[in-house]
Amino acid sequence: MENQKEKIVLAFSGGLDTSFCVPYLTNERNFEVHTVTVNTGGFNAEEVKTLEKKAITLGAKSHTTIDATKSYYENGIKYMIFGNCLRNNSYPLSVSSERIFQAMETLKVVKKTGAKYVAHGSTGAGNDQIRFDIVFDILAPEVEIVAPIRELQSSRRFEIDYLKKHNFDYSWDKSKYSLNQGIWGTSICGVETLSSDGVLPEEAFPHKVEKQNPEMITIGFSEGEPVSLNGKEMEPLDVIRSLAKIADPYGIGRDVNVGDTIIGLKGRVGFEAAAPMIIIKAHHLLEKHTLTKSQQYWKEMIGNYYGQLMHEAQYLDPVMRNMEVFLKSTQKNVTGTVKVILRPYCFDVAGCSSKYDLMNAKFGEYGEINKSYGARDIIGFTKVLANPSKVYYTLNEKEKELLK
Amino acid sequence: MENQKEKIVLAFSGGLDTSFCVPYLTNERNFEVHTVTVNTGGFNAEEVKTLEKKAITLGAKSHTTIDATKSYYENGIKYMIFGNCLRNNSYPLSVSSERIFQAMETLKVVKKTGAKYVAHGSTGAGNDQIRFDIVFDILAPEVEIVAPIRELQSSRRFEIDYLKKHNFDYSWDKSKYSLNQGIWGTSICGVETLSSDGVLPEEAFPHKVEKQNPEMITIGFSEGEPVSLNGKEMEPLDVIRSLAKIADPYGIGRDVNVGDTIIGLKGRVGFEAAAPMIIIKAHHLLEKHTLTKSQQYWKEMIGNYYGQLMHEAQYLDPVMRNMEVFLKSTQKNVTGTVKVILRPYCFDVAGCSSKYDLMNAKFGEYGEINKSYGARDIIGFTKVLANPSKVYYTLNEKEKELLK
Amino acid sequence: MENQKEKIVLAFSGGLDTSFCVPYLTNERNFEVHTVTVNTGGFNAEEVKTLEKKAITLGAKSHTTIDATKSYYENGIKYMIFGNCLRNNSYPLSVSSERIFQAMETLKVVKKTGAKYVAHGSTGAGNDQIRFDIVFDILAPEVEIVAPIRELQSSRRFEIDYLKKHNFDYSWDKSKYSLNQGIWGTSICGVETLSSDGVLPEEAFPHKVEKQNPEMITIGFSEGEPVSLNGKEMEPLDVIRSLAKIADPYGIGRDVNVGDTIIGLKGRVGFEAAAPMIIIKAHHLLEKHTLTKSQQYWKEMIGNYYGQLMHEAQYLDPVMRNMEVFLKSTQKNVTGTVKVILRPYCFDVAGCSSKYDLMNAKFGEYGEINKSYGARDIIGFTKVLANPSKVYYTLNEKEKELLK
Amino acid sequence: MENQKEKIVLAFSGGLDTSFCVPYLTNERNFEVHTVTVNTGGFNAEEVKTLEKKAITLGAKSHTTIDATKSYYENGIKYMIFGNCLRNNSYPLSVSSERIFQAMETLKVVKKTGAKYVAHGSTGAGNDQIRFDIVFDILAPEVEIVAPIRELQSSRRFEIDYLKKHNFDYSWDKSKYSLNQGIWGTSICGVETLSSDGVLPEEAFPHKVEKQNPEMITIGFSEGEPVSLNGKEMEPLDVIRSLAKIADPYGIGRDVNVGDTIIGLKGRVGFEAAAPMIIIKAHHLLEKHTLTKSQQYWKEMIGNYYGQLMHEAQYLDPVMRNMEVFLKSTQKNVTGTVKVILRPYCFDVAGCSSKYDLMNAKFGEYGEINKSYGARDIIGFTKVLANPSKVYYTLNEKEKELLK
Repeated sequence: MENQKEKIVLAFSGGLDTSFCVPYLTNERNFEVHTVTVNTGGFNAEEVKTLEKKAITLGAKSHTTIDATKSYYENGIKYMIFGNCLRNNSYPLSVSSERIFQAMETLKVVKKTGAKYVAHGSTGAGNDQIRFDIVFDILAPEVEIVAPIRELQSSRRFEIDYLKKHNFDYSWDKSKYSLNQGIWGTSICGVETLSSDGVLPEEAFPHKVEKQNPEMITIGFSEGEPVSLNGKEMEPLDVIRSLAKIADPYGIGRDVNVGDTIIGLKGRVGFEAAAPMIIIKAHHLLEKHTLTKSQQYWKEMIGNYYGQLMHEAQYLDPVMRNMEVFLKSTQKNVTGTVKVILRPYCFDVAGCSSKYDLMNAKFGEYGEINKSYGARDIIGFTKVLANPSKVYYTLNEKEKELLK
Repeated sequence: MENQKEKIVLAFSGGLDTSFCVPYLTNERNFEVHTVTVNTGGFNAEEVKTLEKKAITLGAKSHTTIDATKSYYENGIKYMIFGNCLRNNSYPLSVSSERIFQAMETLKVVKKTGAKYVAHGSTGAGNDQIRFDIVFDILAPEVEIVAPIRELQSSRRFEIDYLKKHNFDYSWDKSKYSLNQGIWGTSICGVETLSSDGVLPEEAFPHKVEKQNPEMITIGFSEGEPVSLNGKEMEPLDVIRSLAKIADPYGIGRDVNVGDTIIGLKGRVGFEAAAPMIIIKAHHLLEKHTLTKSQQYWKEMIGNYYGQLMHEAQYLDPVMRNMEVFLKSTQKNVTGTVKVILRPYCFDVAGCSSKYDLMNAKFGEYGEINKSYGARDIIGFTKVLANPSKVYYTLNEKEKELLK
Repeated sequence: MENQKEKIVLAFSGGLDTSFCVPYLTNERNFEVHTVTVNTGGFNAEEVKTLEKKAITLGAKSHTTIDATKSYYENGIKYMIFGNCLRNNSYPLSVSSERIFQAMETLKVVKKTGAKYVAHGSTGAGNDQIRFDIVFDILAPEVEIVAPIRELQSSRRFEIDYLKKHNFDYSWDKSKYSLNQGIWGTSICGVETLSSDGVLPEEAFPHKVEKQNPEMITIGFSEGEPVSLNGKEMEPLDVIRSLAKIADPYGIGRDVNVGDTIIGLKGRVGFEAAAPMIIIKAHHLLEKHTLTKSQQYWKEMIGNYYGQLMHEAQYLDPVMRNMEVFLKSTQKNVTGTVKVILRPYCFDVAGCSSKYDLMNAKFGEYGEINKSYGARDIIGFTKVLANPSKVYYTLNEKEKELLK
Repeated sequence: MENQKEKIVLAFSGGLDTSFCVPYLTNERNFEVHTVTVNTGGFNAEEVKTLEKKAITLGAKSHTTIDATKSYYENGIKYMIFGNCLRNNSYPLSVSSERIFQAMETLKVVKKTGAKYVAHGSTGAGNDQIRFDIVFDILAPEVEIVAPIRELQSSRRFEIDYLKKHNFDYSWDKSKYSLNQGIWGTSICGVETLSSDGVLPEEAFPHKVEKQNPEMITIGFSEGEPVSLNGKEMEPLDVIRSLAKIADPYGIGRDVNVGDTIIGLKGRVGFEAAAPMIIIKAHHLLEKHTLTKSQQYWKEMIGNYYGQLMHEAQYLDPVMRNMEVFLKSTQKNVTGTVKVILRPYCFDVAGCSSKYDLMNAKFGEYGEINKSYGARDIIGFTKVLANPSKVYYTLNEKEKELLK
């Protein structure tokens, strides 16, 4: 039947690109568009409603909102905390990790509607297109992917004009910065991030620096998860949310991530992520006290790689499940309380207390001689430790002479 | 002959422990004491003179001052910059690395004097004893090591009293904090660092926080080495010194290192190292722009391990020389200028420019479609990238169902 | 009371060293000696009886035999199979791993008898002393360790003479080679292993090469564990035992391990371990078919390190438990059958079949174009893959010219 | 002008696929075809002549032969020896590495002829297409790539028929196995390698097993390179060639590589590479004696990754140059002689001698107490080594109870 339009499910954020996609897919591509917004903590109840209304207004046949925050925490954020995951030693993978969960949740609507097509609004230049494509392709190879923005290589101007032509005028022009907000941080793109030496101005960031006086807070962890704030127990997601309220007005957790995109080009993205940065650093300190050196060494290797694979759209590789059980297993004793001092633009992880603290008085303090061994033991220890190099320099006298 | 005393060379810092050692070794152990101070940037000309006078006053037969700052930079600091070396992701190995060079230089005096004994003032609880012992034992196994403080397990009180009894009263009691200063940073021990949750007060740090207004500076690098500051070319060591003068009054680079000592116990040491922290982070940013992802990945692994071996007294293992040529080789293109914004307690590495910047307009900007490939190429790329997981989930349908 | 001797528990293998220890500890050190033999598969029922009789004859007050083979498999061997653990890419850690379990089991007798002393017969030159000492020291720091052979630096001759003097003549002189046998292989020391170029003769090995004709066998694995041989299901330990009977007469699994001892010196030990080598290599092949590339990469890193820590007496570090859950988690799909061809001195791992084999016809064969992507996708894939180096050489034209 | 054909340079091996390409590119695609054969040790002088004649007969306008064996050794093989590179712990990257050098050399003819097109005969299923494409794309992005076999997805039957139709009948049908021969080994594809459990028969391998009696040979190394055979000094390439003559008749170095292709699918390829396997294993043994443990650990990591990047067509990533200087730096002392015993299907690396052998009598033998430390030192060493776990179990009593 000619009237029978094919269904397509569109991952919808309400931004310019995905807003453009609704009428475009409807009118130019003849699809019946079903929008889905996967909330990973970036939208409050009111915004969710606004988004729904907007989607329908733009011509969506149906709109679904999925609150994936809890699932995102349980299957992603939690392990990134365990792994102290910071891309390039700076970026808490705010958007990187979100996309994966948004793609997976979008497929649930694809399944429910029986659609044979799925769409996303990513451009052809960044990482997000890979994240959507790869999750769709792996989990639903039978479903065809449509990526209008990438295909058209459309400009903001073109999209705004198209929307205006169809009588949708949401005053897109105002915003100089493109922000993507989620529970695990906000990314910021602007003209400054396009060059290597551009510096994002204060106005680019989602929060103003309004607090000036230092403030001491405490975060409680239980087996690696944040479970209390300033002594008050709460769900991990609520620790993140409450901590954000306290720390955001300090302008903490701002930086620019300079990284290699999945497609092999360098890119810069600004971000602000006060709560994630504080939680990760506090968690890391607690680990320095409760894990052995070998545990820390391997956790760092595995954690870094877990973050890398997450960032590079490899969340579905089964090795990620193996790494997750490893990371979880290391958290058994990561229980305790961490003191953090907040200041404008920065924070100090000041100290911690834990019943599993290996820096334990019974076994001696740095600066005090230990009971379980004596000076004679240290001499023996060092003699044995010296063996390999001692043998080496016996056979390599010339090198030795150069050093002495 | 009874008059014929055995010579001993004592590594002398002028602190309580090594000051005690001079009369102790002379009187109680019947040695002819030759002191040597190896300056790794911690002492200015005047302090050097004072130290020499002090050593002789305490009874040293001779005193030698060796300025090892240059050698320390060329053979240690330089590679730690190349490797972005931060112990436990925080500590620039300020004292850790110094000790190795102090031990090696001390042996030169041992050789010159023909002494059969060498002494250091380290206690039996920390890392320094291992660093002195192991260098001495590897490079001069024929020389006997004497470590009075470790052997006596002597307390500060005991040492002060002994010195007083011998009429040396340098008013040791005043200082609540034990600082160790060098070109690559200052370490701080105090009662607060003995517990896991003690917070060092402002007074514990060597510099006061006197600057409040943000200040933008630029650091120039050539093949990985810092060679200019605010546009003015200078020797790397002078970049470090000049940068310290600018940054120290911000209270930048303060933290507490929580680490595993070589002897397997946890310990905490405070430190302040503004210039090292800024240089390492600025250097790291420049690398993010000029090195490929694979180069960064391997540099991080090697750099971290280089730092670990340096910290753990393994500087003489030949693998260190192999790592040094690797690190040097990666620095070929790490040339350019980095902008840094200084603020109270923190700094932002704000951007950089380099003729080797791989984030290059010719090959596209993050956010702009690239000329060397198109949308169709990305689709192909992602399809191929999806292959392993796609095959995996075909054989593991149940896991797939759980995700969709 | 003078009659009240202190109890000591001696780990007893029945070899010259531990046999010497019984009368020595009794007579010269005035201990009441309780011997314990921890069987890790090296002794059959008859040998166990002989050992018990020998211990009592030598003067032991009591003798305990503990069959730890099962525990050794479940807590050690199993994970070494999962990790394809081969020290220095050659040695299946036959003796290295045994000692740890022998030390732990010995402590059970210490606990039961309430002894305040524990003894082992290791010399002061090898790894075994460290393994016993460290397990004893970590798990029972309150118990004092006695190591007569190390303390006395006694020679074989001295020990034989001492035993003869006390009327114990077990004709020790005959054996030119010192063998240590267990379920996971036999180690061989002889005059040839003391030099770098000595070659152990045929007679040094525990089995003769009696089979000449190739033989094809199959080993079945279930979640990484060997569970059948030639189609017959059996317990993993029985797979090892039955396989040994088939493979030992081929002289398979012989090599010399050249390694760095824990105390930092190089050493050589010969070994023969047909069943362990075949099982590990067969297991590894099955993994190549059933695990993704990332899983294999990380398994290799973790597996190698697990083996290293096992070898170096770090079994009790909690990181080992973390690695075990990682390794176990990777074995979910390592189920299938492996064909192995046995030949004199070697074997081929010839092929495998598994329902989880990722080399799956549905997704194409090497040499046949695949259905899930086409030539155009490959072009796109390669273009994107080329990006980083393409950008690099654009900025480094000279290097490019050298290559073209 | 209509007569003016565009020039195309075709990498020509003389096999069915590239033979087909000559008339196909000439007739169907209207190119002026210039063939180039890059010899990486697979062709002798006579075969080179035959190839040239064949190319011209098939219609090539010109044919160039480039002997790249020396360059291949100096820039590839040498580092794979230094790195003991074995893909998946078994395959010496015989073909993998060749292709890269063939692609680079082919570009020299492209440059000389001024051609705007370059062609290769790889199919769309394997790794070789990626290797040619990526080298061409990185070093000559301005040149267009034509890959007829991949584009046509042509079958052997189709190609044979096409050639016959054009009167080229080289009796392709005879060969059941497709072999690719080079100085660093021969790869073998056949119907058996298409399934996971197929076993290549004897006839599939390039050499027959004609020697039965064991034979002892010696290989001399100088700074990691093979420089003599059985005491006779020669060029490294001649060591490889002469060793092949001795070892090939034993059927040594046969195996099947099961690996993950660059495009993410599993594949199997048989190979025979006696000389490479023997050289790598002999070289590795010499390293076990002359390098410290840390050197070996890092060399293994770097070497494995070097091989992986080589295999996966990433030879041009600048990190490879960094790894090469690392590897070279480690070879300083890898000088000495290695004994190898050859047997049918296998070999033993039996021992070595080197003036840099760290297993040195002066510092004690395994089994003999060492002079530079005593029993008391070992006790101290072990006590200190036990510290981390001792502290851990003090805080984790329950786990300790389970172990005791």
